[in-house]
Amino acid sequence: MKLLRVGPVGAERPALLDQDGTLRDLSGLITDVDGALLADDSVLSRVRDAAASGQLPVLDAEGLRIGAPVGRIGKIVGIGLNYFAHAAEIGAEPPAEPILFLKAADTVVGPDDTVLIPRGSVKTDWEAELGVVIGSTARYLSSAAEGLAHVGGYTLVNDVSEREFQIERGGTWDKGKNCETFTPLGPWLLTADEVADPQNLDVKLWVNGELKQDGNTADQIFPVGEVVRYLSQFMTLYPGDVIVTGTPAGVAMGQPDPKPYLRAGDVVEVEIEGLGRQRQEFKSA
Amino acid sequence: MKLLRVGPVGAERPALLDQDGTLRDLSGLITDVDGALLADDSVLSRVRDAAASGQLPVLDAEGLRIGAPVGRIGKIVGIGLNYFAHAAEIGAEPPAEPILFLKAADTVVGPDDTVLIPRGSVKTDWEAELGVVIGSTARYLSSAAEGLAHVGGYTLVNDVSEREFQIERGGTWDKGKNCETFTPLGPWLLTADEVADPQNLDVKLWVNGELKQDGNTADQIFPVGEVVRYLSQFMTLYPGDVIVTGTPAGVAMGQPDPKPYLRAGDVVEVEIEGLGRQRQEFKSA
Repeated sequence: MKLLRVGPVGAERPALLDQDGTLRDLSGLITDVDGALLADDSVLSRVRDAAASGQLPVLDAEGLRIGAPVGRIGKIVGIGLNYFAHAAEIGAEPPAEPILFLKAADTVVGPDDTVLIPRGSVKTDWEAELGVVIGSTARYLSSAAEGLAHVGGYTLVNDVSEREFQIERGGTWDKGKNCETFTPLGPWLLTADEVADPQNLDVKLWVNGELKQDGNTADQIFPVGEVVRYLSQFMTLYPGDVIVTGTPAGVAMGQPDPKPYLRAGDVVEVEIEGLGRQRQEFKSA
Repeated sequence: MKLLRVGPVGAERPALLDQDGTLRDLSGLITDVDGALLADDSVLSRVRDAAASGQLPVLDAEGLRIGAPVGRIGKIVGIGLNYFAHAAEIGAEPPAEPILFLKAADTVVGPDDTVLIPRGSVKTDWEAELGVVIGSTARYLSSAAEGLAHVGGYTLVNDVSEREFQIERGGTWDKGKNCETFTPLGPWLLTADEVADPQNLDVKLWVNGELKQDGNTADQIFPVGEVVRYLSQFMTLYPGDVIVTGTPAGVAMGQPDPKPYLRAGDVVEVEIEGLGRQRQEFKSA
């Protein structure tokens, strides 16, 4: 199923994009698309049956804002340098174990919402990523297979990053990962049962129409199941938590000087096979 | 005012500790102690008036669990190496600008709840800290005075940290800061109007009755108002967000080998002037 949240900021309602591409209202059935839903197989089954019936009310998609597809996100864990080609482009060795950082849930916006370039920023960069949404509580898992079994669904993320803040201002990467609006998420959450192989998904990103990232999750150093297993040794993952699993090659930081960091007016588009497409206009904060 | 949340985990009710040390029920007046309350001066005034009236129902404190004093926390921002004596003890230069890291809100427990030593951990450490609770949205502030004006209150924190995970496992400090139960908070939130000078508070911590940390917030490299101003350049701070402002000297990591890292059965007590006292028993996860 493709689950969405549509409507004005802070007043999104749950929706479903059916197999014909028709947007259907789920608000008669569930209150939100969130961790509680993903953790509840019986409610998910009811939603699946309702979708199959073809009887869910149709929503008029014209002019409707698409929100982030997960509400009440607890935490967002980022994985750094998780593609061989991306580590190579910035001159880093592939890490021996996953690098993690955190993004606050309050940085999340919808897939097509405006992204704000922070005041004083000269190195705002893009990162197309596969987002993993946790479906059941994961704690001290013992295998990557178990890790995969705790995934509720997948979504598309632009893990926007300010490189000066992240790397040159002292301390951890978090300083450049948590500016307001820095985590466009969506358009939809695709439930895990419909993703045959999360390690074979094309990931693409364009800036002003020019293709900048063109990777595949097959190039991930630590695949999704292993990332979930690994993280569960250091923290408990709860339903609705999101993991942004790293970006392929092609970010601005990896390119020759003068690096093409984002400026107000730039438009970024992101796409992952089966997970839809985002389009953000960048403006000054 | 001293605001608390008391009762079983996940079902805490708002309460107030009055000037006579009597615990009073606030659940007839407010639903929770959270960012929404701190941001609403009119409701805060009603609570203040009700407290002054002496008419609030008395709660039987006997056997009552004290929860973390803030509900619905959005994010927790940690400041690293923020005391001159602590930077010195671990052989670090005082940072040129604040080091920040993040702790997920799901790591928060009550001040006297059990703390779990992660599986495989051999370097679980303590950090007594002044916690700052944001009272109003802070974004691109221009002065430390403005920063202080956005503080809703103060509380006590043990920023429990696993040093191997934090420092020796690659990536950012977040890996050692986000284990479950790693953020005991409370017992109460003291509203900012009752803290005459946040830069003159004694901070103490004991392990098994032995005094380990004995500092004062006067030793902070970046004082509270400056920390809030600084952070607001990199992220938006929302009511109910918590800043843990760094720890004074005396952590296990700063001591001669063999460093006295925490073991199951150890008891840690933490105290800050006017903010009460915590007591945690450490157990194995």
